[in-house]
Amino acid sequence: MGFWKSLFSNSAVEPAKKTRLRPVANQNGQIFFSTDRDIDLYELEELCDSVGWSRRPVRKVRIALQHSFVVISMWEQRGGFRRLIGFARATSDHAFNATIWDVVVHPDFQGKGLGKALMLEVIKELRRADISNISLFADAHVVNFYSQLGFNPDPEGIKGMFWYP
Amino acid sequence: MGFWKSLFSNSAVEPAKKTRLRPVANQNGQIFFSTDRDIDLYELEELCDSVGWSRRPVRKVRIALQHSFVVISMWEQRGGFRRLIGFARATSDHAFNATIWDVVVHPDFQGKGLGKALMLEVIKELRRADISNISLFADAHVVNFYSQLGFNPDPEGIKGMFWYP
Ligand SMILES: CC(C)(COP(=O)(O)OP(=O)(O)OC[C@H]1O[C@@H](n2cnc3c(N)ncnc32)[C@H](O)[C@@H]1OP(=O)(O)O)[C@@H](O)C(=O)NCCC(=O)NCCS
Ligand SMILES: CC(C)(COP(=O)(O)OP(=O)(O)OC[C@H]1O[C@@H](n2cnc3c(N)ncnc32)[C@H](O)[C@@H]1OP(=O)(O)O)[C@@H](O)C(=O)NCCC(=O)NCCS
Repeated sequence: MGFWKSLFSNSAVEPAKKTRLRPVANQNGQIFFSTDRDIDLYELEELCDSVGWSRRPVRKVRIALQHSFVVISMWEQRGGFRRLIGFARATSDHAFNATIWDVVVHPDFQGKGLGKALMLEVIKELRRADISNISLFADAHVVNFYSQLGFNPDPEGIKGMFWYP
Repeated sequence: MGFWKSLFSNSAVEPAKKTRLRPVANQNGQIFFSTDRDIDLYELEELCDSVGWSRRPVRKVRIALQHSFVVISMWEQRGGFRRLIGFARATSDHAFNATIWDVVVHPDFQGKGLGKALMLEVIKELRRADISNISLFADAHVVNFYSQLGFNPDPEGIKGMFWYP
């Protein structure tokens, strides 16, 4: 499915003006969200590169997107051009739990409220699917970013743990 | 797919003797693992009841099992009878991440090494699928249980967080 089709004819895709975005400084374009999984994976790789994340095989990224429950991408639209400026996804059992991964906003667009808008979009999609248990693993330096959005670290002493072989 | 078929003819299902179980005291039966998702959901509910977990709609449990990446159940076999004595499952993006949920051993069978064997079975399945990032959210009182299995709490300051509406 092409991007334009998804942007303008898919009801799951909504222009950003429907979410409460703070105004973006020096911004002549418009910001859009998309739930389309058919993202150019090289453009996604560039976005992840821009925040210093290590490269991952495109083949595996494709599988991961296919098997994510929610995929949200954020785009800047200027005239006929679009640019991928943000991304987040969540895995889920489609019933109780969802876990959010790979939250990223391009450095050129950070600090303008877009990360928050992106997260609210992810939460909205998960709530729409009646998922009650939304979790994530936050890098130390972004715990406050998520706290502001209503995420609690270690609620009732529950600990996030990772297996090291 | 019936239970017996899966137990004896499905290569993904292996008798427990292939995993290193510690001997089970007063145990005339045998312990088996299964990866079959077609579990009697009322038997699963009874198991979860036995450790005091709150009830969940069977309809949603069915969906959750269908959309889990790995489902491992543990059975005691005595003569012609089998009994569900343990359970664990994991969600995943099928590529990078998996998160383990709903780890439970029936109180009659706790403290005999079976929880550990069950977790090793889950980890084995995830490693077989080339998942490198295995995570979970541990209740405060079982952090040590998971630590012994190689799980680290808050590695590099990464915090498990849950969203509260
Ligand atoms: C984390 C990230 C997604 C935030 O996006 P952003 O667009 O810069 O965030 P916003 O502008 O929407 O910030 C929303 C609020 O969170 C705060 N915030 C933003 N980044 C923060 C951080 N790193 N630590 C603490 N608070 C932060 C902002 O001050 C703002 O607060 P305010 O509403 O009181 O002004 C973005 O910085 C990023 O992509 N970082 C690199 C990748 C990364 O670390 N991802 C998270 C991995 S777990
Ligand atoms: C947690 C649970 C799965 C452990 O199963 P189990 O069969 O009793 O555990 P094992 O006998 O395999 O124990 C393995 C090791 O962990 C230790 N251990 C077991 N339960 C523990 C606990 N609650 N806290 C700390 N250590 C624990 C054992 O002492 C044993 O250590 P050892 O190898 O040095 O002797 C089981 O107690 C259970 O179902 N509890 C209720 C449900 C629950 O809390 N699930 C976890 C939700 S996050």
